[in-house]
Amino acid sequence: MAKSVKILAMHPDMHTLFPNTPKSWDFVEARGSVEQTIAEAGDTVEVLLSASIEKLDKHMLDSFPNLKMIASISAGFSNIDLEECKKRGIAVTNAPGMNSGDVADVAVTMLNSLLLNFPQSQHYIMSDQWTSKSGPIRRSLRNMPVGIVGLGSIGKEVVKRLEPFGVDIRWWGPRPKPDVALPYVASVSELAQQCRGLIVCCRPDETTRHLIDQQILDQLGSDGVIVNVARGFVVDQVALIDYLKSGGIAGAGLDVFDPEPTNAATWDGVPNVILTPHQGGSTIETLMAQAQVAQNNIENFFAGQPLLTAVNLA
Amino acid sequence: MAKSVKILAMHPDMHTLFPNTPKSWDFVEARGSVEQTIAEAGDTVEVLLSASIEKLDKHMLDSFPNLKMIASISAGFSNIDLEECKKRGIAVTNAPGMNSGDVADVAVTMLNSLLLNFPQSQHYIMSDQWTSKSGPIRRSLRNMPVGIVGLGSIGKEVVKRLEPFGVDIRWWGPRPKPDVALPYVASVSELAQQCRGLIVCCRPDETTRHLIDQQILDQLGSDGVIVNVARGFVVDQVALIDYLKSGGIAGAGLDVFDPEPTNAATWDGVPNVILTPHQGGSTIETLMAQAQVAQNNIENFFAGQPLLTAVNLA
Repeated sequence: MAKSVKILAMHPDMHTLFPNTPKSWDFVEARGSVEQTIAEAGDTVEVLLSASIEKLDKHMLDSFPNLKMIASISAGFSNIDLEECKKRGIAVTNAPGMNSGDVADVAVTMLNSLLLNFPQSQHYIMSDQWTSKSGPIRRSLRNMPVGIVGLGSIGKEVVKRLEPFGVDIRWWGPRPKPDVALPYVASVSELAQQCRGLIVCCRPDETTRHLIDQQILDQLGSDGVIVNVARGFVVDQVALIDYLKSGGIAGAGLDVFDPEPTNAATWDGVPNVILTPHQGGSTIETLMAQAQVAQNNIENFFAGQPLLTAVNLA
Repeated sequence: MAKSVKILAMHPDMHTLFPNTPKSWDFVEARGSVEQTIAEAGDTVEVLLSASIEKLDKHMLDSFPNLKMIASISAGFSNIDLEECKKRGIAVTNAPGMNSGDVADVAVTMLNSLLLNFPQSQHYIMSDQWTSKSGPIRRSLRNMPVGIVGLGSIGKEVVKRLEPFGVDIRWWGPRPKPDVALPYVASVSELAQQCRGLIVCCRPDETTRHLIDQQILDQLGSDGVIVNVARGFVVDQVALIDYLKSGGIAGAGLDVFDPEPTNAATWDGVPNVILTPHQGGSTIETLMAQAQVAQNNIENFFAGQPLLTAVNLA
């Protein structure tokens, strides 16, 4: 990798994620906005560093006639027109499965907060309902039935963190996994009926759009709580808000929304929610590690070595 | 235990915790208030079922001239005048160490909620600060230094639950424990300097009153958070509120207060707090188990068998 390589970071602040780049890397200097930079210097760019939020469609790719590679620092790549990349001989790499632990931290902490009635307790104290010395009695987490919707890399990290709390874990996914010892439940509907809490961390695609709908919320019931860390569209958000407002379910923890960003008006007067701005996997530590994977892929590409995490273009 | 035993429950709703009592148990029927019941039937009572919140001092004991035993369904017994019981030959039993897991559930969930910025995130969304597609970047829990103040039965349950989150756990207690592999830090002050978060679960007595004072909060610093599940007086609550309001620390999770019950006015305008009404250990499952211990103690006492969990009156 002696020859210089022209690289464009699709977001100016991505540079800070690459503290130790090879001497051969030649970052395109920003000229005002990214659009302006692309207009002036797009034809020199050989590698794009992508963060999965900007659209890399046919039209955008036309701005980069000499592009050889797109290296994404995210797991997702639905922003990239893969067919077009294949046609043009552009290699695509991503950085999969690296933030599962971070996302699981958020999911488990949301679920336990809801099962322990944290939002209700705060309201109880802040509305001066705590008047006698002994407080209200609650249910123990021990043996409480909890369901995981989708046992991929996030789901497995969720299990590790939940187990020491002694909850009774079961799961659903599109197919049973012989290597998993936890009880498998044949449908999300049955899982919702059996459980006090659900964590939704399945693959977000067209087969799981509105997987959590009014019927599932109904089966979860008035003492049930739900956490979504997959994508906003996996839950029917309008139905969810209805069920929260009417007490049809007891609470929700949401790191993802439909659409994003969500706003205050959407959640005004909706009780017992814990809301975070899609930052389950957005930790500086994970971003640095994902950037390192992108860097390693770029170095391998120009050294003629196999890519570490190539996106399949077939 | 063929002979009938006259038993008074100090709270009317304690009866529900004893679904299967022996035939020989003869509960004193309530006559209006507990005070009225004691005035009318105190002289017949042989066993008191106590819940640790009512004062059983010399004066109160005078109401029970035939008392043989006090069986508490709590771990604590600071409400009972043990010297007076010894003089009068009254046996005392408690139900220790049974709610440590429940308390640890609350402590760990509060700590993680704070380390994950849940209160700040909710405020961020509900004040419409989330405007661009990508949300703010946070720190990962992985390798974050976290300190446990007091490694008794609750502290050990805390460790079990925290470990899978990958935080870097260290602890302080009045003396090192050779059987504990976690790093021991010689003072609370050093622990606060080293850590992003503290869980206070030490023994609450005169040696730990205001153990967490202004100096410790200062050392914890503006990115530090604290959880208290011991007793309210272990933390200087006035200093804590000052530090929260000025941003001197980043957040607090409190299940215990000084005094209790606490009220809304105390916490009005105090940011980044998670408040629960001293219900860490108050689960129906644990109360039933503690009641069973009291029942077993009473049965052993009248069968002339050794008490299971006698409080030492020496």
